Amino acid sequence: MNRIITLTTDFGLSDEYVGVMKGVILARAPAATIVDLCHGVERQDIVQAALLIKSAYVFFPKGTIHIVVVDPGVGSERRLIVLVADGHIFLAPDNGVLSLLLDSETIAAAYEIQCEHYYLSPVSSTFHGRDILAPVAAQLAAGLDPAATGPLLHPRTLLRIAVDEPHIDAGQGKISGRIISRDHFGNLQTNIGEKFLKSLWAKSGMNVKVTVKERVISGIQDSYVAAAPGELLAIINSRGFVEIASNQDDAGALLGAGPGDTVVLEMVRTQ
Amino acid sequence: MNRIITLTTDFGLSDEYVGVMKGVILARAPAATIVDLCHGVERQDIVQAALLIKSAYVFFPKGTIHIVVVDPGVGSERRLIVLVADGHIFLAPDNGVLSLLLDSETIAAAYEIQCEHYYLSPVSSTFHGRDILAPVAAQLAAGLDPAATGPLLHPRTLLRIAVDEPHIDAGQGKISGRIISRDHFGNLQTNIGEKFLKSLWAKSGMNVKVTVKERVISGIQDSYVAAAPGELLAIINSRGFVEIASNQDDAGALLGAGPGDTVVLEMVRTQ
Amino acid sequence: MNRIITLTTDFGLSDEYVGVMKGVILARAPAATIVDLCHGVERQDIVQAALLIKSAYVFFPKGTIHIVVVDPGVGSERRLIVLVADGHIFLAPDNGVLSLLLDSETIAAAYEIQCEHYYLSPVSSTFHGRDILAPVAAQLAAGLDPAATGPLLHPRTLLRIAVDEPHIDAGQGKISGRIISRDHFGNLQTNIGEKFLKSLWAKSGMNVKVTVKERVISGIQDSYVAAAPGELLAIINSRGFVEIASNQDDAGALLGAGPGDTVVLEMVRTQ
Repeated sequence: MNRIITLTTDFGLSDEYVGVMKGVILARAPAATIVDLCHGVERQDIVQAALLIKSAYVFFPKGTIHIVVVDPGVGSERRLIVLVADGHIFLAPDNGVLSLLLDSETIAAAYEIQCEHYYLSPVSSTFHGRDILAPVAAQLAAGLDPAATGPLLHPRTLLRIAVDEPHIDAGQGKISGRIISRDHFGNLQTNIGEKFLKSLWAKSGMNVKVTVKERVISGIQDSYVAAAPGELLAIINSRGFVEIASNQDDAGALLGAGPGDTVVLEMVRTQ
Repeated sequence: MNRIITLTTDFGLSDEYVGVMKGVILARAPAATIVDLCHGVERQDIVQAALLIKSAYVFFPKGTIHIVVVDPGVGSERRLIVLVADGHIFLAPDNGVLSLLLDSETIAAAYEIQCEHYYLSPVSSTFHGRDILAPVAAQLAAGLDPAATGPLLHPRTLLRIAVDEPHIDAGQGKISGRIISRDHFGNLQTNIGEKFLKSLWAKSGMNVKVTVKERVISGIQDSYVAAAPGELLAIINSRGFVEIASNQDDAGALLGAGPGDTVVLEMVRTQ
Repeated sequence: MNRIITLTTDFGLSDEYVGVMKGVILARAPAATIVDLCHGVERQDIVQAALLIKSAYVFFPKGTIHIVVVDPGVGSERRLIVLVADGHIFLAPDNGVLSLLLDSETIAAAYEIQCEHYYLSPVSSTFHGRDILAPVAAQLAAGLDPAATGPLLHPRTLLRIAVDEPHIDAGQGKISGRIISRDHFGNLQTNIGEKFLKSLWAKSGMNVKVTVKERVISGIQDSYVAAAPGELLAIINSRGFVEIASNQDDAGALLGAGPGDTVVLEMVRTQ
């Protein structure tokens, strides 16, 4: 079978770590198509990886196998799991990196990986992505039933991470959120999803005022070029969240802002 | 069909943007071979991307599909185009990024992309590479006729960018050019193509003197090791342009030079 | 044949150099699976590349073709070689980058590449990875016999590099080594292999004391999490060498240490 396996890690690309995982996979599943989803997750940043895999997996076809290795607890007693959800298969440490999928998708099943006969031998204490996840993913790509990877787990027992949700004050027409990521272009994604914004927008004759780092931005634009070059704007980004950006410039640098900073949206009456 | 699709962007690799484009492609053209041509184009640098795709596409077989996404005007009225040239297919915004191909290659046809039934739905206002170019490229890889992507465009109507050409003073035996890029090794590529240099070289008993940042370099060498380690030299690089380099060192750092700086070549009599 | 070709270079990913090598390969071997093993080797660092390919190739299946391009002597008289060892095929300059394979693996044969009819034409003087190694590797992937790439070489004639070996003082129960690499996580790999350590460990009632940059670390741990977050530890890393690391932190930054720094292991009596 020509299955797709995606890789999401905090390994960067300066070492051979990603490359050897591909060797392990291709030795066991020569027909697999391996896709680097992202290796630029900040080191040990489980929340960033959790947000990334949740927003990205839907662009792949059903049946895709996703390996997520952000694993500060490697070598400890933390479990490795297989999660079958929404027709996709995910392999990761049970450290919360898959927990945003638990909130919102149909979970078919979860398993604790315990199929030592598929692991590399010996298993190192520092690189389970290579020694366990890669060979098990390859077996799944080659047709192994996920149920054969280990004992069934109740999804309720999986570790969940807390992700900051925006605070909504419907009476005041106000949403308080935070910046959760800054991308290569300096665009600042907030944790304020499109759906929250829509609730605000239901009132006619009103506009949205966005405040970040004591700067006020008016309205939500339809494109980056709606602002003059170098000007700040707010927009719904390609992941479906409110984003602070700048037309052809780096909003993060312009504002001196980044993950953790507060962003407030308020309804104001248009004159 | 097992077609090749190349990706050239200014996305970098720290986000999942490149990865999700691959998911969109593989969901529609599972047998496509996707190649990262380069994701290190400077943000919004249309000229750099235009030079890169022109010098690189020829190393791929005829029939290759090249997606180029350097798109500061995303979400505005700028067109997206399909260009068929020299047996290759190119998809990009109509912002000049393909215009160096227009100058020198046989253009078979150009089309404005207007085939909404192939787009992702909904189309975001910030990521047409994922929502339009990737699925349309996948359809082309799966056999779609380029003429089915939208109305025919006259190539004369496509936006062209101005690229600095070197100034040639044949009487004085002198060429004035500029540095147009600095690569990972610190090598400084000029806009002085091999053909210009050959015109100078036609005189025997003469040598070339290269001046950059008030430093004078003598001759055009055949290899980096023709200079001592750490010494500057001039050479014809692998893209066919005069390059200022240093044997096992970083010429850009040594000279404090980069894109935009002037480089002058002069014929001098050899003794 | 669906052969795997890996690429290891010091090219980085900011230019199109890696991408065009893939174009050259796929034009000649459309069914090849190309894997980026690593493009983050430090510029011109032959030793780093030699260590990397030696530790990484074993994770790929027999029959894999490995191209290694760290080639400061490109365009000079240095030879390009094909090395058949341990069921794998390696292509590289004869500058020592493959010489750690010569020390420890079964060498089946070595050849000097001299098969001009397969090269790109013309061959540039600065990019033999693209113009010679890529097309020859593609022919090998398509079934060419390595013996057809050029004259047989005696492995003794291949250039070897000196790699620092640790100094072992068995009487004193002491090993003096060096840091040889610092990875993306700041982990510091030494040149002290697991086998050396095992010789020390043979005495019971003893423990290992590790000294680096005047800091003393006690014992060899089984996992990063054996230390408190931010604390230093020593561990056997996934390449089989003693490594100085920090639980969820950057040991290189904490210690201000990097390649070349001394690391001493000593046996001490446990109380």
